[in-house]
Amino acid sequence: MDFFNNIIDRIKPLDKDIMNQMWSRIDNLTKPIGSLGRLEEIAAKIAGITGKLNNNVSKKNIIIMCADNGIVCEGVSNCPQNTTAIVTENFTKGITGVCILSKFYGSDMTVVDVGVNTDFNNDKIINKKIAYGTKNMAKEPAMTREQTIKAIEVGIEIVDKLVREGYELLGTGEMGVGNTTTSAAVLSVLTDLEAEVVVGKGSGLNEEQYFHKKAIVKKAIEVNKPDKDDVIDVLSKVGGFDIAALCGCFLGAGISRVPIVIDGFISAAAALCAYRLNPLVRDYIFPSHLSAEPGAQYAMKELNLEPMLNLEMRLGEGSGCPLAFNVIEAALYTINNMETFEGADIDSSNYIDIRTEKKI
Amino acid sequence: MDFFNNIIDRIKPLDKDIMNQMWSRIDNLTKPIGSLGRLEEIAAKIAGITGKLNNNVSKKNIIIMCADNGIVCEGVSNCPQNTTAIVTENFTKGITGVCILSKFYGSDMTVVDVGVNTDFNNDKIINKKIAYGTKNMAKEPAMTREQTIKAIEVGIEIVDKLVREGYELLGTGEMGVGNTTTSAAVLSVLTDLEAEVVVGKGSGLNEEQYFHKKAIVKKAIEVNKPDKDDVIDVLSKVGGFDIAALCGCFLGAGISRVPIVIDGFISAAAALCAYRLNPLVRDYIFPSHLSAEPGAQYAMKELNLEPMLNLEMRLGEGSGCPLAFNVIEAALYTINNMETFEGADIDSSNYIDIRTEKKI
Repeated sequence: MDFFNNIIDRIKPLDKDIMNQMWSRIDNLTKPIGSLGRLEEIAAKIAGITGKLNNNVSKKNIIIMCADNGIVCEGVSNCPQNTTAIVTENFTKGITGVCILSKFYGSDMTVVDVGVNTDFNNDKIINKKIAYGTKNMAKEPAMTREQTIKAIEVGIEIVDKLVREGYELLGTGEMGVGNTTTSAAVLSVLTDLEAEVVVGKGSGLNEEQYFHKKAIVKKAIEVNKPDKDDVIDVLSKVGGFDIAALCGCFLGAGISRVPIVIDGFISAAAALCAYRLNPLVRDYIFPSHLSAEPGAQYAMKELNLEPMLNLEMRLGEGSGCPLAFNVIEAALYTINNMETFEGADIDSSNYIDIRTEKKI
Repeated sequence: MDFFNNIIDRIKPLDKDIMNQMWSRIDNLTKPIGSLGRLEEIAAKIAGITGKLNNNVSKKNIIIMCADNGIVCEGVSNCPQNTTAIVTENFTKGITGVCILSKFYGSDMTVVDVGVNTDFNNDKIINKKIAYGTKNMAKEPAMTREQTIKAIEVGIEIVDKLVREGYELLGTGEMGVGNTTTSAAVLSVLTDLEAEVVVGKGSGLNEEQYFHKKAIVKKAIEVNKPDKDDVIDVLSKVGGFDIAALCGCFLGAGISRVPIVIDGFISAAAALCAYRLNPLVRDYIFPSHLSAEPGAQYAMKELNLEPMLNLEMRLGEGSGCPLAFNVIEAALYTINNMETFEGADIDSSNYIDIRTEKKI
């Protein structure tokens, strides 16, 4: 537990002084108070993270944690298991959804093998393999406690590396056949929500297969009896290398003071794990879209974060991140460049702040 | 009524053949079927509008209809009435919220005076003034029927002009102190929803002022008794030049077969008017964000459109449009550039389309 106590000590709250200065500036821009909504909140939160009033986040990177899950032998997905390996390679060829969206928005990608069931011969894939996939959680714990901590450390380490390289905004993505099953199991344990509520159809299941997937999630939890108050226990018993590594990314963002974006259901489940390990990390986390995978909304609710985009996407890979990066960049650009009331020749003497009902 | 029958005849349904071809192409891209959610729907809808499979919409323009509202003498807003004129000028100086967002996203703006209570000496403002503001709808109809039709024609004409100039994607914005009041009145009549539900705090009111605004909306409806089945009657009695002109923009988009984006509450109310005049127009309309103004969600519901963005913005001006333009561009770019299953070396033989439960 020294490891985690150490992490908890290293994540600090946002810089409230700078945030107050930022809010004064925002409230003096030529617009009704609060009328840019979440764009204002984003700008204030980023100021609190960086400690600076003028921010831009043009250097952006999506971390894609790739790993296999032993649970796939129970038939929880229609994708053959080797899809994990093929798509992991395809990220480096620039042909998947997240690649195209990243190219459109000018963000880079970091592909990490944290447990894929193959050996890659590809120098664009960072080799942090812990094992060739997890065990079948319907029969035994998916990972050991040591493996789980190691995966978390991979995430922290990758974030640290990227921040040293000058990246100012990070995203989280994943590839791992079976990981909507593991994410649902983790979420179910952490929130006490039934499998019926948090399990979705992943990449595509018919009703019979969907029923089976829910039963498997329930079985994995019954077999392993994870302790909901011990996040490492939950992750190791019914999680996966990808979720644990992404959990590490969120913790790493808090440690390195860099904004980090949630993509879909899997990264939301990982963000929730990080939040349960240290609630301060939430202030460094930005949601992107609301995934169509049903568990996503419950993870968001637990995190008390409201998605910026509502696109019914459920591709994973980090594909929601470039879209959210862009909203964040638009928010910063707008707050940095709008005119003040004085400059705009607007008499704001009767304007009311509807949050406080006071004149400004 | 010849005028409107003529419009109704000129708006045609989307091109279903091209849309079917587009869906085949989308469903063969390397991703679980349907997993790009609304990005896929956007690409298919635009194909149906343009009749082409490969689309890009890089030439974009936001039409900002500016007009004053007689109702402001009843104290429904804390903004002095001359804010309409000042902000209309400020659009041409590039300093307001929509200007900054448009600059960030590379979209142009068309500022139209359709009824501002001043004479501009500014060649960047298109003069289509119908009157120096509307009448006070709490005492009499805001406009005559002829004025209303003239304002709608302005919108149709501006869209036609922009499409001839090569614009491929349009947005709608407005400036007019008092126009959340008129929009709420129009929405209340068209939907039978009470003023309590659809009236919001606009640019900022305290509770007492908010109560007063709701009473004024009720009074305007009682005094004028608009016929909910006659949109022109509703617009002329409790609407405004800006809403009517925006209604014309939406109709014009259907006529000229160009995608058009709703911004916030006022443009959503205008879109609903257009939809009630000709339901086919809905297929040419794209939502942007869900405005924090409470009526917006009811207008969206009536239109059966789901906003892409959830940013609690309530600035108006068309400020949500550039953000939505960008999501639309990202959708087209992604669908145009993603690899197919074959090219990506993915075995999709067991993939299931969760919309139909069939293998693909």
